[in-house]
Amino acid sequence: MTKTQKIPKATITRLSMYYRQLELLEFDGYRMVSSEKLAWLCQINPAQVRKDLGYFGEFGVRGVGYDVIDLLAQIKKILSLNRDWNFGIAGMGNLGCAILLHRNLALRGFKCAAAFDNSHDRIGMPLPGGTKIRDIKELKTAIRDLNIEIGVITTPASSAQKVADLFLEGHVNAILNFAPTRINVPDCCLVENIDFTVIMDILAYKLREKMAA
Amino acid sequence: MTKTQKIPKATITRLSMYYRQLELLEFDGYRMVSSEKLAWLCQINPAQVRKDLGYFGEFGVRGVGYDVIDLLAQIKKILSLNRDWNFGIAGMGNLGCAILLHRNLALRGFKCAAAFDNSHDRIGMPLPGGTKIRDIKELKTAIRDLNIEIGVITTPASSAQKVADLFLEGHVNAILNFAPTRINVPDCCLVENIDFTVIMDILAYKLREKMAA
Repeated sequence: MTKTQKIPKATITRLSMYYRQLELLEFDGYRMVSSEKLAWLCQINPAQVRKDLGYFGEFGVRGVGYDVIDLLAQIKKILSLNRDWNFGIAGMGNLGCAILLHRNLALRGFKCAAAFDNSHDRIGMPLPGGTKIRDIKELKTAIRDLNIEIGVITTPASSAQKVADLFLEGHVNAILNFAPTRINVPDCCLVENIDFTVIMDILAYKLREKMAA
Repeated sequence: MTKTQKIPKATITRLSMYYRQLELLEFDGYRMVSSEKLAWLCQINPAQVRKDLGYFGEFGVRGVGYDVIDLLAQIKKILSLNRDWNFGIAGMGNLGCAILLHRNLALRGFKCAAAFDNSHDRIGMPLPGGTKIRDIKELKTAIRDLNIEIGVITTPASSAQKVADLFLEGHVNAILNFAPTRINVPDCCLVENIDFTVIMDILAYKLREKMAA
Protein backbone atom coordinates (compact mmCIF):
# COMPACT_ATOMS: atom_id res chain seq x y z
CA MET A 1 0.00 0.00 0.00
CA THR A 2 1.36 3.43 -0.88
CA LYS A 3 1.33 5.83 2.05
CA THR A 4 -0.78 8.41 0.23
CA GLN A 5 -3.56 5.99 -0.79
CA LYS A 6 -6.75 6.49 1.18
CA ILE A 7 -8.52 3.20 1.88
CA PRO A 8 -12.33 3.51 1.67
CA LYS A 9 -14.23 2.81 4.89
CA ALA A 10 -16.34 0.25 3.01
CA THR A 11 -13.15 -1.71 2.25
CA ILE A 12 -12.22 -1.80 5.93
CA THR A 13 -15.75 -2.95 6.77
CA ARG A 14 -15.46 -5.77 4.24
CA LEU A 15 -11.97 -6.75 5.45
CA SER A 16 -13.52 -7.30 8.85
CA MET A 17 -16.19 -9.50 7.21
CA TYR A 18 -13.55 -11.44 5.22
CA TYR A 19 -11.65 -12.00 8.43
CA ARG A 20 -14.63 -13.58 10.14
CA GLN A 21 -15.35 -15.90 7.18
CA LEU A 22 -11.66 -16.86 6.94
CA GLU A 23 -11.68 -17.77 10.64
CA LEU A 24 -14.63 -20.09 9.99
CA LEU A 25 -12.91 -21.59 6.93
CA GLU A 26 -9.76 -22.20 8.95
CA PHE A 27 -11.83 -23.80 11.69
CA ASP A 28 -13.41 -26.09 9.09
CA GLY A 29 -9.96 -27.12 7.84
CA TYR A 30 -9.84 -25.26 4.52
CA ARG A 31 -6.32 -24.33 3.41
CA MET A 32 -7.18 -22.34 0.27
CA VAL A 33 -10.14 -20.18 -0.72
CA SER A 34 -11.01 -18.59 -4.07
CA SER A 35 -12.15 -14.98 -4.30
CA GLU A 36 -15.44 -16.42 -5.66
CA LYS A 37 -16.05 -18.49 -2.54
CA LEU A 38 -15.02 -15.74 -0.15
CA ALA A 39 -17.28 -13.33 -2.04
CA TRP A 40 -20.18 -15.79 -1.91
CA LEU A 41 -19.74 -16.24 1.85
CA CYS A 42 -19.84 -12.47 2.33
CA GLN A 43 -22.66 -11.95 -0.16
CA ILE A 44 -20.72 -9.58 -2.42
CA ASN A 45 -19.13 -9.98 -5.85
CA PRO A 46 -15.67 -11.55 -6.42
CA ALA A 47 -14.26 -8.48 -8.21
CA GLN A 48 -14.89 -6.51 -5.03
CA VAL A 49 -12.90 -9.00 -2.94
CA ARG A 50 -9.97 -8.79 -5.36
CA LYS A 51 -10.15 -4.99 -5.44
CA ASP A 52 -10.29 -4.69 -1.63
CA LEU A 53 -7.33 -6.98 -1.09
CA GLY A 54 -5.47 -5.32 -3.98
CA TYR A 55 -5.13 -2.15 -1.88
CA PHE A 56 -2.72 -3.95 0.38
CA GLY A 57 -0.68 -6.08 -2.00
CA GLU A 58 -0.72 -9.30 -4.00
CA PHE A 59 -2.05 -11.98 -1.67
CA GLY A 60 -3.64 -14.53 -4.01
CA VAL A 61 -2.36 -16.92 -6.63
CA ARG A 62 -4.15 -16.62 -9.98
CA GLY A 63 -6.37 -19.62 -10.63
CA VAL A 64 -5.76 -21.04 -7.17
CA GLY A 65 -6.97 -18.47 -4.68
CA TYR A 66 -5.80 -17.31 -1.30
CA ASP A 67 -3.99 -19.24 1.40
CA VAL A 68 -6.46 -19.05 4.30
CA ILE A 69 -3.93 -18.82 7.13
CA ASP A 70 -1.73 -16.36 5.27
CA LEU A 71 -4.65 -14.10 4.37
CA LEU A 72 -5.89 -14.20 7.97
CA ALA A 73 -2.48 -13.05 9.16
CA GLN A 74 -2.36 -10.27 6.56
CA ILE A 75 -5.81 -8.93 7.41
CA LYS A 76 -5.05 -9.22 11.11
CA LYS A 77 -2.05 -6.99 10.55
CA ILE A 78 -3.95 -4.53 8.34
CA LEU A 79 -6.79 -4.20 10.87
CA SER A 80 -4.37 -4.04 13.83
CA LEU A 81 -5.99 -7.13 15.31
CA ASN A 82 -2.53 -8.43 16.17
CA ARG A 83 -2.72 -6.50 19.42
CA ASP A 84 -5.36 -5.97 22.11
CA TRP A 85 -7.34 -2.77 22.56
CA ASN A 86 -8.73 -1.73 25.93
CA PHE A 87 -12.06 0.00 25.94
CA GLY A 88 -14.18 1.57 28.66
CA ILE A 89 -17.99 1.68 28.65
CA ALA A 90 -19.96 4.58 30.09
CA GLY A 91 -23.62 3.77 30.80
CA MET A 92 -24.33 0.31 32.20
CA GLY A 93 -27.96 -0.18 31.19
CA ASN A 94 -29.00 -3.08 28.97
CA LEU A 95 -26.93 -1.88 26.02
CA GLY A 96 -23.79 -1.37 28.10
CA CYS A 97 -24.16 -4.89 29.49
CA ALA A 98 -24.71 -6.27 25.97
CA ILE A 99 -21.40 -4.72 24.83
CA LEU A 100 -19.60 -5.91 27.96
CA LEU A 101 -20.77 -9.49 27.41
CA HIS A 102 -20.29 -9.50 23.61
CA ARG A 103 -18.25 -12.62 23.02
CA ASN A 104 -16.99 -11.66 19.58
CA LEU A 105 -15.45 -8.40 20.75
CA ALA A 106 -13.36 -10.18 23.36
CA LEU A 107 -12.34 -12.86 20.87
CA ARG A 108 -11.11 -10.15 18.50
CA GLY A 109 -8.93 -8.57 21.17
CA PHE A 110 -11.26 -5.79 22.29
CA LYS A 111 -11.15 -5.98 26.09
CA CYS A 112 -13.53 -4.11 28.34
CA ALA A 113 -11.11 -2.71 30.95
CA ALA A 114 -13.73 -0.81 32.94
CA ALA A 115 -17.44 0.00 33.04
CA PHE A 116 -18.90 3.22 34.45
CA ASP A 117 -22.24 4.60 35.51
CA ASN A 118 -23.52 7.57 37.49
CA SER A 119 -26.40 5.76 39.19
CA HIS A 120 -25.85 4.78 42.83
CA ASP A 121 -27.93 1.67 42.21
CA ARG A 122 -25.39 0.44 39.69
CA ILE A 123 -22.04 1.69 41.04
CA GLY A 124 -20.26 -1.17 42.81
CA MET A 125 -22.27 -3.92 41.09
CA PRO A 126 -20.03 -6.89 40.32
CA LEU A 127 -19.17 -7.65 36.69
CA PRO A 128 -17.96 -10.88 35.08
CA GLY A 129 -14.21 -11.10 35.50
CA GLY A 130 -14.12 -9.90 39.08
CA THR A 131 -14.41 -6.14 38.54
CA LYS A 132 -17.22 -3.78 39.52
CA ILE A 133 -19.13 -0.96 37.90
CA ARG A 134 -17.22 2.22 38.71
CA ASP A 135 -18.43 5.72 39.45
CA ILE A 136 -18.30 7.84 36.28
CA LYS A 137 -16.29 10.32 38.38
CA GLU A 138 -13.39 7.84 38.27
CA LEU A 139 -13.36 7.79 34.45
CA LYS A 140 -10.33 10.03 33.94
CA THR A 141 -8.14 8.22 36.47
CA ALA A 142 -9.21 4.80 35.19
CA ILE A 143 -8.36 5.72 31.59
CA ARG A 144 -4.80 6.45 32.66
CA ASP A 145 -4.41 3.53 35.08
CA LEU A 146 -5.96 0.92 32.79
CA ASN A 147 -4.62 2.22 29.48
CA ILE A 148 -8.07 2.69 27.93
CA GLU A 149 -7.80 3.74 24.29
CA ILE A 150 -11.41 3.47 23.13
CA GLY A 151 -14.45 4.99 24.84
CA VAL A 152 -17.89 3.44 24.34
CA ILE A 153 -20.90 5.64 25.10
CA THR A 154 -24.12 3.79 25.93
CA THR A 155 -25.76 6.54 28.00
CA PRO A 156 -29.03 8.30 27.15
CA ALA A 157 -28.67 11.13 24.61
CA SER A 158 -28.82 13.76 27.36
CA SER A 159 -25.55 12.57 28.99
CA ALA A 160 -23.60 11.67 25.84
CA GLN A 161 -21.76 14.97 25.38
CA LYS A 162 -20.78 15.16 29.04
CA VAL A 163 -19.34 11.65 28.88
CA ALA A 164 -17.57 12.37 25.58
CA ASP A 165 -15.93 15.39 27.24
CA LEU A 166 -14.72 13.18 30.11
CA PHE A 167 -13.20 10.68 27.66
CA LEU A 168 -11.49 13.57 25.85
CA GLU A 169 -10.12 14.99 29.10
CA GLY A 170 -8.60 11.56 29.71
CA HIS A 171 -6.99 11.72 26.22
CA VAL A 172 -9.09 8.97 24.68
CA ASN A 173 -9.01 9.59 20.94
CA ALA A 174 -11.55 7.07 19.68
CA ILE A 175 -15.21 6.96 20.66
CA LEU A 176 -17.94 4.50 19.73
CA ASN A 177 -21.17 6.38 20.32
CA PHE A 178 -24.46 4.51 20.70
CA ALA A 179 -26.38 7.46 22.15
CA PRO A 180 -29.02 8.71 19.70
CA THR A 181 -27.38 12.11 19.26
CA ARG A 182 -24.30 13.55 17.60
CA ILE A 183 -21.42 14.41 19.92
CA ASN A 184 -19.06 17.31 19.30
CA VAL A 185 -15.39 16.41 19.55
CA PRO A 186 -12.22 18.01 18.18
CA ASP A 187 -10.71 16.66 14.94
CA CYS A 188 -8.09 14.71 16.88
CA CYS A 189 -10.79 12.36 18.15
CA LEU A 190 -12.26 9.60 15.97
CA VAL A 191 -15.96 8.88 16.35
CA GLU A 192 -18.11 6.05 15.01
CA ASN A 193 -21.84 6.42 15.62
CA ILE A 194 -24.24 3.50 15.85
CA ASP A 195 -27.72 4.90 15.88
CA PHE A 196 -30.47 2.28 15.93
CA THR A 197 -33.12 4.81 14.94
CA VAL A 198 -31.23 5.87 11.82
CA ILE A 199 -30.80 2.25 10.71
CA MET A 200 -34.46 1.50 11.37
CA ASP A 201 -35.34 4.59 9.29
CA ILE A 202 -33.28 3.22 6.39
CA LEU A 203 -35.03 -0.14 6.62
CA ALA A 204 -38.48 1.49 6.72
CA TYR A 205 -37.61 3.70 3.75
CA LYS A 206 -36.52 0.71 1.66
CA LEU A 207 -39.52 -1.32 2.76
CA ARG A 208 -41.94 1.39 1.72
CA GLU A 209 -40.09 1.74 -1.61
CA LYS A 210 -40.42 -2.00 -2.15
CA MET A 211 -44.12 -1.98 -1.28
CA ALA A 212 -44.68 0.85 -3.76
CA ALA A 213 -42.81 -0.96 -6.56
CA MET B 1 -38.12 12.78 -7.47
CA THR B 2 -38.09 10.88 -10.72
CA LYS B 3 -39.11 7.25 -10.38
CA THR B 4 -35.92 5.95 -11.95
CA GLN B 5 -33.56 7.92 -9.69
CA LYS B 6 -31.82 5.75 -7.12
CA ILE B 7 -31.33 7.55 -3.81
CA PRO B 8 -27.99 6.73 -2.15
CA LYS B 9 -28.19 5.00 1.22
CA ALA B 10 -25.95 7.71 2.67
CA THR B 11 -28.59 10.29 1.72
CA ILE B 12 -31.29 8.35 3.56
CA THR B 13 -28.98 8.08 6.59
CA ARG B 14 -28.46 11.85 6.55
CA LEU B 15 -32.19 12.56 6.07
CA SER B 16 -32.75 10.66 9.29
CA MET B 17 -30.11 12.86 10.98
CA TYR B 18 -31.65 16.05 9.55
CA TYR B 19 -35.00 14.93 10.87
CA ARG B 20 -33.70 14.59 14.42
CA GLN B 21 -32.02 18.02 14.32
CA LEU B 22 -35.15 19.62 12.85
CA GLU B 23 -37.22 18.13 15.66
CA LEU B 24 -34.87 19.76 18.18
CA LEU B 25 -35.02 23.09 16.30
CA GLU B 26 -38.81 22.95 16.27
CA PHE B 27 -38.81 22.18 19.99
CA ASP B 28 -36.57 25.23 20.57
CA GLY B 29 -39.02 27.42 18.64
CA TYR B 30 -37.07 27.95 15.41
CA ARG B 31 -39.24 28.52 12.34
CA MET B 32 -36.50 28.70 9.68
CA VAL B 33 -33.11 27.07 9.31
CA SER B 34 -30.34 27.66 6.74
CA SER B 35 -28.57 24.75 5.05
CA GLU B 36 -25.41 26.06 6.77
CA LYS B 37 -26.90 25.72 10.23
CA LEU B 38 -28.48 22.33 9.54
CA ALA B 39 -25.15 21.16 8.11
CA TRP B 40 -23.27 22.43 11.15
CA LEU B 41 -25.66 20.64 13.52
CA CYS B 42 -25.10 17.38 11.62
CA GLN B 43 -21.36 17.92 11.23
CA ILE B 44 -21.36 17.80 7.44
CA ASN B 45 -21.00 20.44 4.71
CA PRO B 46 -23.89 22.65 3.53
CA ALA B 47 -23.57 21.61 -0.14
CA GLN B 48 -24.30 18.04 0.98
CA VAL B 49 -27.51 19.13 2.72
CA ARG B 50 -28.68 20.95 -0.41
CA LYS B 51 -27.76 18.00 -2.63
CA ASP B 52 -29.54 15.47 -0.40
CA LEU B 53 -32.75 17.49 -0.22
CA GLY B 54 -32.48 18.25 -3.95
CA TYR B 55 -33.26 14.60 -4.72
CA PHE B 56 -36.78 15.11 -3.48
CA GLY B 57 -37.69 18.59 -4.75
CA GLU B 58 -37.24 22.27 -4.04
CA PHE B 59 -37.83 22.73 -0.34
CA GLY B 60 -35.80 25.80 0.56
CA VAL B 61 -35.97 29.49 -0.28
CA ARG B 62 -32.71 30.89 -1.63
CA GLY B 63 -31.03 33.19 0.90
CA VAL B 64 -33.61 32.37 3.57
CA GLY B 65 -33.39 28.65 4.20
CA TYR B 66 -35.89 25.96 5.00
CA ASP B 67 -39.17 26.21 6.87
CA VAL B 68 -38.57 23.88 9.83
CA ILE B 69 -42.09 22.48 10.12
CA ASP B 70 -42.50 22.10 6.38
CA LEU B 71 -39.16 20.32 6.00
CA LEU B 72 -39.99 18.02 8.93
CA ALA B 73 -43.25 17.06 7.20
CA GLN B 74 -41.47 16.45 3.88
CA ILE B 75 -38.77 14.23 5.40
CA LYS B 76 -41.37 12.43 7.45
CA LYS B 77 -43.15 11.57 4.22
CA ILE B 78 -39.95 10.60 2.38
CA LEU B 79 -38.83 8.32 5.20
CA SER B 80 -42.34 6.89 5.69
CA LEU B 81 -42.35 8.09 9.27
CA ASN B 82 -45.93 9.27 8.79
CA ARG B 83 -47.07 5.78 9.73
CA ASP B 84 -46.16 3.28 12.44
CA TRP B 85 -44.13 0.14 11.85
CA ASN B 86 -44.51 -2.93 14.03
CA PHE B 87 -41.40 -4.92 14.74
CA GLY B 88 -40.74 -8.18 16.59
CA ILE B 89 -37.54 -8.97 18.48
CA ALA B 90 -36.08 -12.47 18.67
CA GLY B 91 -33.55 -12.95 21.48
CA MET B 92 -34.34 -11.20 24.76
CA GLY B 93 -30.89 -10.89 26.32
CA ASN B 94 -29.42 -7.50 27.20
CA LEU B 95 -29.40 -6.31 23.60
CA GLY B 96 -33.00 -7.36 22.96
CA CYS B 97 -34.08 -5.49 26.10
CA ALA B 98 -32.07 -2.42 25.04
CA ILE B 99 -33.94 -2.34 21.70
CA LEU B 100 -37.29 -2.93 23.40
CA LEU B 101 -36.73 -0.02 25.79
CA HIS B 102 -35.15 2.33 23.21
CA ARG B 103 -37.16 5.51 23.64
CA ASN B 104 -36.23 7.04 20.29
CA LEU B 105 -37.50 4.08 18.28
CA ALA B 106 -40.94 4.31 19.86
CA LEU B 107 -41.02 8.09 19.37
CA ARG B 108 -40.32 7.60 15.67
CA GLY B 109 -43.19 5.20 15.25
CA PHE B 110 -41.29 1.91 15.51
CA LYS B 111 -43.37 -0.16 17.92
CA CYS B 112 -42.22 -3.42 19.41
CA ALA B 113 -45.30 -5.60 18.94
CA ALA B 114 -43.79 -8.77 20.39
CA ALA B 115 -40.59 -10.17 21.90
CA PHE B 116 -39.49 -13.81 21.60
CA ASP B 117 -36.97 -16.14 23.15
CA ASN B 118 -36.37 -19.88 23.28
CA SER B 119 -35.18 -20.01 26.90
CA HIS B 120 -37.70 -21.30 29.41
CA ASP B 121 -36.26 -18.91 31.99
CA ARG B 122 -37.30 -15.96 29.84
CA ILE B 123 -40.55 -17.10 28.20
CA GLY B 124 -43.49 -15.59 30.07
CA MET B 125 -41.44 -12.80 31.68
CA PRO B 126 -43.50 -9.60 31.81
CA LEU B 127 -42.49 -6.68 29.59
CA PRO B 128 -43.31 -2.98 29.89
CA GLY B 129 -46.69 -2.35 28.32
CA GLY B 130 -48.39 -5.40 29.79
CA THR B 131 -47.13 -8.07 27.36
CA LYS B 132 -44.83 -11.01 28.02
CA ILE B 133 -41.85 -12.62 26.34
CA ARG B 134 -43.27 -15.23 23.95
CA ASP B 135 -41.97 -18.62 22.96
CA ILE B 136 -40.04 -18.39 19.68
CA LYS B 137 -42.34 -21.19 18.45
CA GLU B 138 -45.16 -18.62 18.36
CA LEU B 139 -43.23 -16.33 16.01
CA LYS B 140 -45.07 -17.20 12.80
CA THR B 141 -48.55 -16.86 14.32
CA ALA B 142 -47.64 -13.64 16.11
CA ILE B 143 -46.32 -12.06 12.90
CA ARG B 144 -49.69 -12.58 11.29
CA ASP B 145 -51.84 -11.66 14.31
CA LEU B 146 -49.86 -8.55 15.27
CA ASN B 147 -49.02 -7.36 11.76
CA ILE B 148 -45.25 -7.47 12.31
CA GLU B 149 -43.39 -6.07 9.29
CA ILE B 150 -39.83 -5.85 10.61
CA GLY B 151 -37.89 -8.63 12.34
CA VAL B 152 -35.06 -7.77 14.74
CA ILE B 153 -32.51 -10.52 15.44
CA THR B 154 -30.61 -10.17 18.73
CA THR B 155 -29.79 -13.84 19.21
CA PRO B 156 -26.30 -15.35 19.33
CA ALA B 157 -24.73 -15.98 15.90
CA SER B 158 -25.52 -19.69 16.12
CA SER B 159 -29.33 -19.11 16.14
CA ALA B 160 -29.49 -16.18 13.71
CA GLN B 161 -30.16 -18.14 10.51
CA LYS B 162 -32.85 -20.28 12.16
CA VAL B 163 -34.64 -17.16 13.40
CA ALA B 164 -34.26 -15.43 10.03
CA ASP B 165 -35.92 -18.47 8.40
CA LEU B 166 -38.83 -18.21 10.86
CA PHE B 167 -39.30 -14.52 10.05
CA LEU B 168 -39.24 -15.38 6.33
CA GLU B 169 -41.81 -18.16 6.80
CA GLY B 170 -44.02 -15.55 8.43
CA HIS B 171 -43.55 -13.31 5.35
CA VAL B 172 -41.52 -10.62 7.10
CA ASN B 173 -39.53 -8.88 4.39
CA ALA B 174 -37.25 -6.64 6.43
CA ILE B 175 -34.72 -7.82 8.99
CA LEU B 176 -32.43 -5.86 11.28
CA ASN B 177 -29.67 -8.31 12.19
CA PHE B 178 -27.49 -7.69 15.25
CA ALA B 179 -26.07 -11.23 15.38
CA PRO B 180 -22.37 -11.25 14.49
CA THR B 181 -22.87 -13.32 11.36
CA ARG B 182 -24.30 -12.89 7.88
CA ILE B 183 -27.74 -14.38 7.31
CA ASN B 184 -28.83 -15.85 3.99
CA VAL B 185 -32.20 -14.59 2.78
CA PRO B 186 -33.84 -14.42 -0.65
CA ASP B 187 -33.68 -11.16 -2.62
CA CYS B 188 -37.24 -10.29 -1.62
CA CYS B 189 -36.08 -9.72 1.97
CA LEU B 190 -34.26 -6.55 3.00
CA VAL B 191 -31.49 -6.91 5.58
CA GLU B 192 -29.55 -4.31 7.55
CA ASN B 193 -26.67 -5.67 9.63
CA ILE B 194 -25.37 -3.96 12.75
CA ASP B 195 -22.21 -5.75 13.74
CA PHE B 196 -20.44 -4.25 16.76
CA THR B 197 -17.24 -6.15 16.00
CA VAL B 198 -17.00 -4.76 12.47
CA ILE B 199 -17.46 -1.21 13.72
CA MET B 200 -14.89 -1.70 16.47
CA ASP B 201 -12.51 -3.06 13.80
CA ILE B 202 -12.99 0.13 11.76
CA LEU B 203 -12.28 2.29 14.80
CA ALA B 204 -9.14 0.30 15.68
CA TYR B 205 -7.91 0.51 12.08
CA LYS B 206 -8.31 4.28 12.00
CA LEU B 207 -6.77 4.66 15.44
CA ARG B 208 -3.69 2.69 14.43
CA GLU B 209 -3.45 4.75 11.22
CA LYS B 210 -3.60 7.94 13.28
CA MET B 211 -0.97 6.69 15.71
CA ALA B 212 1.33 5.85 12.79
CA ALA B 213 0.86 9.27 11.17
